[in-house]
Amino acid sequence: MGDAYDVVVIGAGSTGENVADRAVRGGLTAVMVEAELIGGDCSYWACMPSKVLLRGPEALAAARAIPGAAGAVTGGVDAAATLRRRDAFAAHWSDTGQVEWARSRGIDVVRGRGRVTGPRRVLVTGAEGDRDLTARHAVAVCTGSVPALPPIDGLADARPWTTREATSAQEIPASMIVLGGGAAGCELATAYAALGAHVSIVEAADRLLPNMEAFAGELVEAALRDRGVDVRTGTRVTAVGRDGDGPTTVFTTGGDLGAQVLLVSTGRRPRLDGLGLDAFGLSEAAWLPVDDTCRVAGVDDGWLYAVGDVNGRHLFTHQGKYQARLCGDAIVAAAHGQPIDTTDWSAHAATADRLAAPAVVFTDPQVATVGRTQAQAAADGLDTRAVDYEIGSVAGAALRADGYTGHARIIVDTARRVIVGATLVGPDVGELIHSATIAIVGEVPLERLWHAVPAYPTVSEIWLRLLEAYGL
Amino acid sequence: MGDAYDVVVIGAGSTGENVADRAVRGGLTAVMVEAELIGGDCSYWACMPSKVLLRGPEALAAARAIPGAAGAVTGGVDAAATLRRRDAFAAHWSDTGQVEWARSRGIDVVRGRGRVTGPRRVLVTGAEGDRDLTARHAVAVCTGSVPALPPIDGLADARPWTTREATSAQEIPASMIVLGGGAAGCELATAYAALGAHVSIVEAADRLLPNMEAFAGELVEAALRDRGVDVRTGTRVTAVGRDGDGPTTVFTTGGDLGAQVLLVSTGRRPRLDGLGLDAFGLSEAAWLPVDDTCRVAGVDDGWLYAVGDVNGRHLFTHQGKYQARLCGDAIVAAAHGQPIDTTDWSAHAATADRLAAPAVVFTDPQVATVGRTQAQAAADGLDTRAVDYEIGSVAGAALRADGYTGHARIIVDTARRVIVGATLVGPDVGELIHSATIAIVGEVPLERLWHAVPAYPTVSEIWLRLLEAYGL
Repeated sequence: MGDAYDVVVIGAGSTGENVADRAVRGGLTAVMVEAELIGGDCSYWACMPSKVLLRGPEALAAARAIPGAAGAVTGGVDAAATLRRRDAFAAHWSDTGQVEWARSRGIDVVRGRGRVTGPRRVLVTGAEGDRDLTARHAVAVCTGSVPALPPIDGLADARPWTTREATSAQEIPASMIVLGGGAAGCELATAYAALGAHVSIVEAADRLLPNMEAFAGELVEAALRDRGVDVRTGTRVTAVGRDGDGPTTVFTTGGDLGAQVLLVSTGRRPRLDGLGLDAFGLSEAAWLPVDDTCRVAGVDDGWLYAVGDVNGRHLFTHQGKYQARLCGDAIVAAAHGQPIDTTDWSAHAATADRLAAPAVVFTDPQVATVGRTQAQAAADGLDTRAVDYEIGSVAGAALRADGYTGHARIIVDTARRVIVGATLVGPDVGELIHSATIAIVGEVPLERLWHAVPAYPTVSEIWLRLLEAYGL
Repeated sequence: MGDAYDVVVIGAGSTGENVADRAVRGGLTAVMVEAELIGGDCSYWACMPSKVLLRGPEALAAARAIPGAAGAVTGGVDAAATLRRRDAFAAHWSDTGQVEWARSRGIDVVRGRGRVTGPRRVLVTGAEGDRDLTARHAVAVCTGSVPALPPIDGLADARPWTTREATSAQEIPASMIVLGGGAAGCELATAYAALGAHVSIVEAADRLLPNMEAFAGELVEAALRDRGVDVRTGTRVTAVGRDGDGPTTVFTTGGDLGAQVLLVSTGRRPRLDGLGLDAFGLSEAAWLPVDDTCRVAGVDDGWLYAVGDVNGRHLFTHQGKYQARLCGDAIVAAAHGQPIDTTDWSAHAATADRLAAPAVVFTDPQVATVGRTQAQAAADGLDTRAVDYEIGSVAGAALRADGYTGHARIIVDTARRVIVGATLVGPDVGELIHSATIAIVGEVPLERLWHAVPAYPTVSEIWLRLLEAYGL
């Protein structure tokens, strides 16, 4: 037996931190094993740095849209100052603060690579020597995901950027080709174009943001084109070529493109390499299969959990943290011999993963979604009606910006008369979507929502307009 | 008998328009009587113009708070351009568009002063001659409110500005004293200071926004002081003096103040003069007493309604429109012999007036509230717990602005474990409050709200922090 803890967490990103935190909060002991920085991708190479790159241009665009303010904006964004702010938000890629947080919460940290060597056993190999950890109750795998390079001829040899390089770059390249028009690709194309790069974006599907309602990708595409981005949808990459450190050439079904930097943001895969889970019948190539408490299916005695990106339910920091809170509480309950409640919306079931997960794409306009698209609701067998409204027609939006362009759609389950999905596109709508999230999670009927009065004149008045459009 | 309609609406502001619209939508005929501009104060002399004055400065301040964007902001707001935008939003004080809207909805408009001459009878006196209107089903008084000058020696003779002059001014005075530190006073002080006036604000209570949670007024006061506004709380005005068109002197318990313009925003009274309601036992000096359907109490046969400001339930455009929708539907139901449901949250009971009315003060930082303050909840006999969180500690807020200052409080009914009130202070929080409104109106228990995941990194993550702080 090595060091014994109640809970061993492999991967100390935001998800792992939350599993450990809830465990400790519930009276258990916990250790986090981490091979890189405590805090994880979100803090250093994803959400936080990318949003810093986007915020300055967004604020200047907002001011430029208002006569009376526009004249005071005499230049573009300062790329160097923006990168310095980004460095600060990434804590200069130091996890000292996160380590202090863990200590303050009573969570131990072990640096090194974790490997599951047997039931409830984790061997950590690190610079400070090996540690053999035992988990009395649970091992939680929270190792996240890594960018997956698609199998394109010459791509790996061209040493492309992934989102990691794009969020931590110290210089803005003169030109960039972005492969993949999903959320990350659209955000980084927006950021780099604003910071001075000439940007092209290539997407195989017939529109950007292909998993969302069609109008989302269409509005983002229009905005990117307005800012000089070369948007190529319905375009497949056939090969990539690069000579040494020179520019990269991308050969596509729509012609050849060249740029100083190629950024690949076409997808991610679970980070499972070397974790030893194959010994438990689990593939290293597939998202770990879990139930709503994040317990891994098919492992005897139920001691193994997979939380966050690594289970593939959603690749969002907030959704990983949500799973972590509920999973951590489930581990605590089980350790105390209490029942685990797996019914929908119970304290241990990550129901929102299936019914009410939000996402915000921090492009300009922003895209904010929660729950199901109309297509997803139909696939789930629901009778729905989509209700649409032009956000710019709301007084609050017109005040916010001349020429405000945005669109709102809610998906109503006509049998239960509750909202099951919403998509908003427009400047700053990222803060509006939580209203829809609460309406969906709370299963608040339309007749009750009719009493939820939006303050005048806010953009939130779209709620009134959507309900009126439904027929209330 | 004169012209007969199902519904006669006196006062064609946003409230009256909505009563008429719902009536027509329900198959009734409706006429609106208006002595001034169709569209009312909100469009021309209140919400819309004041928010235009505030939006430009707010957007520039947002950009200045972001390294990388701040350097591009080289000046202040352009007052002349701002006033031109304001003119456009006030439709240059022409109601042509509103008249067209009414026509398109099948609502008749009669210009002139309405007077209730008997049950269901309204005499209109206007430039085009008199009209004697009969209402088959209901007369709805939607005449709103007017600024009330407090009884201060010399005040009326000094011809002070009211909110009407302040929102329609064609020049920015060099200096201004604002009497009254409520929502309108704080907004107009913020606007005029940003547009170049030297502003003082005098409030008798010991803080600004005295009807709100204390931290709201404190944070707004700090921001006003930062912008050079002379804030005098706990200060009573004893007299006002003015010579001709010269500057005005305000004598207070804290010394004398002088300024080019004196703006009074100390309160409002119902606009009832000349309506003839004294014949029905109603005072012209008091808000008209109504039930939750906005039916006036004590009038035989129940044909008289008072909707919006004039009933004093709330002096907000959005709340007047809300009452109008429900009251209009109640009138339609009664006309069709259908039952009126007056239980809480039913289709005809303006329950949100009592339990979930929102308000946004468009200062910078903004203040957004809904439902009850802690003091109000205690007065209502509820056992509550206030939960507080510094909004600036949320990642999304830190990204939004360096040095983001803001505060959030929710009031939890500990017996039912639902939220009954919320106050947010911070830049742009006006769009965040609708989440709380839906949570309150939907009576969504905390345990269910725990599943409403805020997208990361948005300011909405305060929801998670507040629930964690409560103990979830």
